[in-house]
Amino acid sequence: MNEDEDVNAAPTATKTFAPEDGRRYMNPFQFGPRPIGRGSARYNDVVSMSISYITDKASLAKYIHKPFEIADEPLLTVSYSMNREVEWLAGHSYNLIAVNASVFFNGEVDKLHGGHPLVLWENLTDPILTGRENEGIPKIYADIPDHSIINGEWRVSASHFGHKIVDMKISDLEQLEEQEVEQLRKRSEGGHWMGWKYIPPTGDGPEVNHPTLFPTSGNQKAAWRGKGKIIWQHLTWEQNPTQFHIVNALHDLPVLEIRSAMVTESSSNLRPANNPPRVIR
Amino acid sequence: MNEDEDVNAAPTATKTFAPEDGRRYMNPFQFGPRPIGRGSARYNDVVSMSISYITDKASLAKYIHKPFEIADEPLLTVSYSMNREVEWLAGHSYNLIAVNASVFFNGEVDKLHGGHPLVLWENLTDPILTGRENEGIPKIYADIPDHSIINGEWRVSASHFGHKIVDMKISDLEQLEEQEVEQLRKRSEGGHWMGWKYIPPTGDGPEVNHPTLFPTSGNQKAAWRGKGKIIWQHLTWEQNPTQFHIVNALHDLPVLEIRSAMVTESSSNLRPANNPPRVIR
Amino acid sequence: MNEDEDVNAAPTATKTFAPEDGRRYMNPFQFGPRPIGRGSARYNDVVSMSISYITDKASLAKYIHKPFEIADEPLLTVSYSMNREVEWLAGHSYNLIAVNASVFFNGEVDKLHGGHPLVLWENLTDPILTGRENEGIPKIYADIPDHSIINGEWRVSASHFGHKIVDMKISDLEQLEEQEVEQLRKRSEGGHWMGWKYIPPTGDGPEVNHPTLFPTSGNQKAAWRGKGKIIWQHLTWEQNPTQFHIVNALHDLPVLEIRSAMVTESSSNLRPANNPPRVIR
Amino acid sequence: MNEDEDVNAAPTATKTFAPEDGRRYMNPFQFGPRPIGRGSARYNDVVSMSISYITDKASLAKYIHKPFEIADEPLLTVSYSMNREVEWLAGHSYNLIAVNASVFFNGEVDKLHGGHPLVLWENLTDPILTGRENEGIPKIYADIPDHSIINGEWRVSASHFGHKIVDMKISDLEQLEEQEVEQLRKRSEGGHWMGWKYIPPTGDGPEVNHPTLFPTSGNQKAAWRGKGKIIWQHLTWEQNPTQFHIVNALHDLPVLEIRSAMVTESSSNLRPANNPPRVIR
Repeated sequence: MNEDEDVNAAPTATKTFAPEDGRRYMNPFQFGPRPIGRGSARYNDVVSMSISYITDKASLAKYIHKPFEIADEPLLTVSYSMNREVEWLAGHSYNLIAVNASVFFNGEVDKLHGGHPLVLWENLTDPILTGRENEGIPKIYADIPDHSIINGEWRVSASHFGHKIVDMKISDLEQLEEQEVEQLRKRSEGGHWMGWKYIPPTGDGPEVNHPTLFPTSGNQKAAWRGKGKIIWQHLTWEQNPTQFHIVNALHDLPVLEIRSAMVTESSSNLRPANNPPRVIR
Repeated sequence: MNEDEDVNAAPTATKTFAPEDGRRYMNPFQFGPRPIGRGSARYNDVVSMSISYITDKASLAKYIHKPFEIADEPLLTVSYSMNREVEWLAGHSYNLIAVNASVFFNGEVDKLHGGHPLVLWENLTDPILTGRENEGIPKIYADIPDHSIINGEWRVSASHFGHKIVDMKISDLEQLEEQEVEQLRKRSEGGHWMGWKYIPPTGDGPEVNHPTLFPTSGNQKAAWRGKGKIIWQHLTWEQNPTQFHIVNALHDLPVLEIRSAMVTESSSNLRPANNPPRVIR
Repeated sequence: MNEDEDVNAAPTATKTFAPEDGRRYMNPFQFGPRPIGRGSARYNDVVSMSISYITDKASLAKYIHKPFEIADEPLLTVSYSMNREVEWLAGHSYNLIAVNASVFFNGEVDKLHGGHPLVLWENLTDPILTGRENEGIPKIYADIPDHSIINGEWRVSASHFGHKIVDMKISDLEQLEEQEVEQLRKRSEGGHWMGWKYIPPTGDGPEVNHPTLFPTSGNQKAAWRGKGKIIWQHLTWEQNPTQFHIVNALHDLPVLEIRSAMVTESSSNLRPANNPPRVIR
Repeated sequence: MNEDEDVNAAPTATKTFAPEDGRRYMNPFQFGPRPIGRGSARYNDVVSMSISYITDKASLAKYIHKPFEIADEPLLTVSYSMNREVEWLAGHSYNLIAVNASVFFNGEVDKLHGGHPLVLWENLTDPILTGRENEGIPKIYADIPDHSIINGEWRVSASHFGHKIVDMKISDLEQLEEQEVEQLRKRSEGGHWMGWKYIPPTGDGPEVNHPTLFPTSGNQKAAWRGKGKIIWQHLTWEQNPTQFHIVNALHDLPVLEIRSAMVTESSSNLRPANNPPRVIR
């Protein structure tokens, strides 16, 4: 190091943080971007249980925000996933239970059919923060132990603060033919998963409040059709102070007809480089 | 049901969600505001361990964003709190470890001395979401078991994904006289806790990026002075993929001189009605 | 070291494990006794919620093994304890829920009135092993989050494999006068807690199968009387395969009359040096 | 119900518990045997990581109890298993890390080569109790998150009270040919896993103290050979009061040469009906 550089060193000594253009940060952002680059968004080993059912249209509508509209019929899909070998988590695992409504996004610009997450419970905070702040997915926490399998019956449940939220069960599994799996893949590929990013204002600061689009891809490797059963609990504020109103709303949406119950194995890449989440209008 | 009601029923049937003015929501917001009104922001039983130390000024500056400036000296305070009887959580509990720098906010409008959270680890997702989205506090998750006390030594540690983040220890406790506790209270009362709310944009959507002020109050009921020790770990991405860069940054800030180590008992009201969090400029 | 000792050293090189007389071991015992000596059996900070109720005598009798007999009346006491600053656990904490019947031990040698644990759930394996193997206390595992307190109501619950076992609630607390607390202490001091040590045989190995006595002491520091409520769940094998039969048995014991509901603060020494657990006959 | 039955009913009303001959119980035994009959001992989905290494013979000998002897060479095998679809747990899951020494049982009656568990950590209390009390396996508790897989590297670690016990890593996996897997199966089939059942006395009650034999079977379905690395921690009593002496003993057994590192997929039946655990002499 020569003298000139030494002279320059002094200002360096008081160098402070400033975010760099074109890099994505999350709070705490002064430590730099989450080093997501060392792991992709690939989920290499995903096992899911999904139950779809028709509910009451007027009841469901109460939780749908324009320009979202209920699709042809008021269909809810509740999906548990055990996500393993998640690359951005250095190969660690987590579980989730998602509640999606089938919707039509009737925007001024965008007109899209797809799934709309009313709520997701996940058992790891890291993807909850990422999903809420990067993609507008309404993720919250629950304890979700890995599913159990006994006598051909698959079961899973979620709870928080020690109080049950929901039970799911799928039995009588029959494996789908490869051509049926191929149809599943086609239906998922290029699909639309549409959230709503909402961040409240602090004081007179800005609010974030707009719909988002997250593209989906078809990655099912194997699938089984079965008989599904789902039971939502009714809770008090004392039992689950931050979520009881959500659980009770879902409990009060009647299960009028189970449309499908399915177990799948898949792997997926949540973030195709050329197709990031975006605002829809 | 008579004919009139039937006529009225039709619009009701398609009533959809829209947020109401003047109410605070969090995602998933279609289920209505978090019913926080049934519990206040009171924390009735808080036990804390705090260790303050001088670190290297130039090293610390790298994590300070203008118009924040390092205070007279580069002082970090690491505080563990076991929060019990938290009213907005229906009387449940959680633990946290906060890292605060002593700063001067040299804004165009506001000129404030106070504490500035570089990062907080909490062992419950609910307050993490509230803190990030309502107050701009950079909270993330860690496993933080309740502190242990043996032979007069208090210990606590935090870890994530099974890998240790930090160890704290305070020994040789001497209780403060009531007048010293009163001084602590005075110093806290009307103090300034200043965060930075940062929410990344989704696509071409808005970004949130501004400092925040959260007033503090003095609620210490008893306090003990002791000898403190703190050990930060150095981690790899494989060990803690979402936080290793934060832990390593704190590990690399040298502990030049322990200034104080203190155990306190307190109760507090985090959200005085007349003094909500606000933007500072 | 002289030459003789050096010669003797060779066999030392192949020295193997043998338990020493007069020392207490637990498996894995080749690593030596649990170093319990560095921490006493003191529990420095215990908060408890207890609900006692009369149940049906004939129903309760099914779970009582001679020479135990039901006391004057069929009284069950369900007690939650949050144990903190547990010295043998280096000052760490754990929670338990105990179900005790009031009994008379009508042995050939010993004639004793006292409490008889039908089952204890604890949320830490270490004291479960110690209790089962050293004292004959029928401890098993459950998730038992710390109690919550809101609006003067104390609540706690336990679950395992994500399925609730029991809920307890105590409200309308009224603090006891010091002389009433003194009476509580007197009643506990020198009391009898009587278990049954049962370890099944392996092959044609020995079985352990005998009653035990564990002395109790009176350590209540403060106490509150309140209104109690307890709800036992009914579970399936699929929900809790190792414990459902226990939970269901307790569920099926009717709560005929709540006799008392109490919150206490205490500290205790579980193992007075001069009064170890022993066999009763 | 006729009159005779009515007469008989009176004694029934005071029927008490007595264990039935020929049935296996565990504490709390008054509620009847664990209903294990509704699930077999099959483990349908087991993924394991095993690392074997040569250590120092004299050092290892300190933890070997006669008539066990160290086999030809002082070989330790540390094995992590993620056990899923465990039938006796109604299809639930748990993880373990086992430390086995290669031994020769040089008994008066039995002369057997096989594996000898020095200690097993498991993250579920239910199998810990069963293993200790039914089979003499020295199981204790640890937090053992599912392994992670990233960039072809498999990692797992265990901790207790927030402090790390051990890290294992296997990389550079190469799949074994079917005939090599067949050899693995042959070596396991009819193998001997030999524990030591030790239950301390209570007062002047009996002690259980004898070796046990647990037959093993060969169930590997696929296997990969790789490069292994293992790191044992050194802990203080304050960090892990019930296990630090065990962890430190293993830490102090040098890793002189890694002999093998392997990942396997298997399913197994731990309790063949015709070959229960038994005492060896």
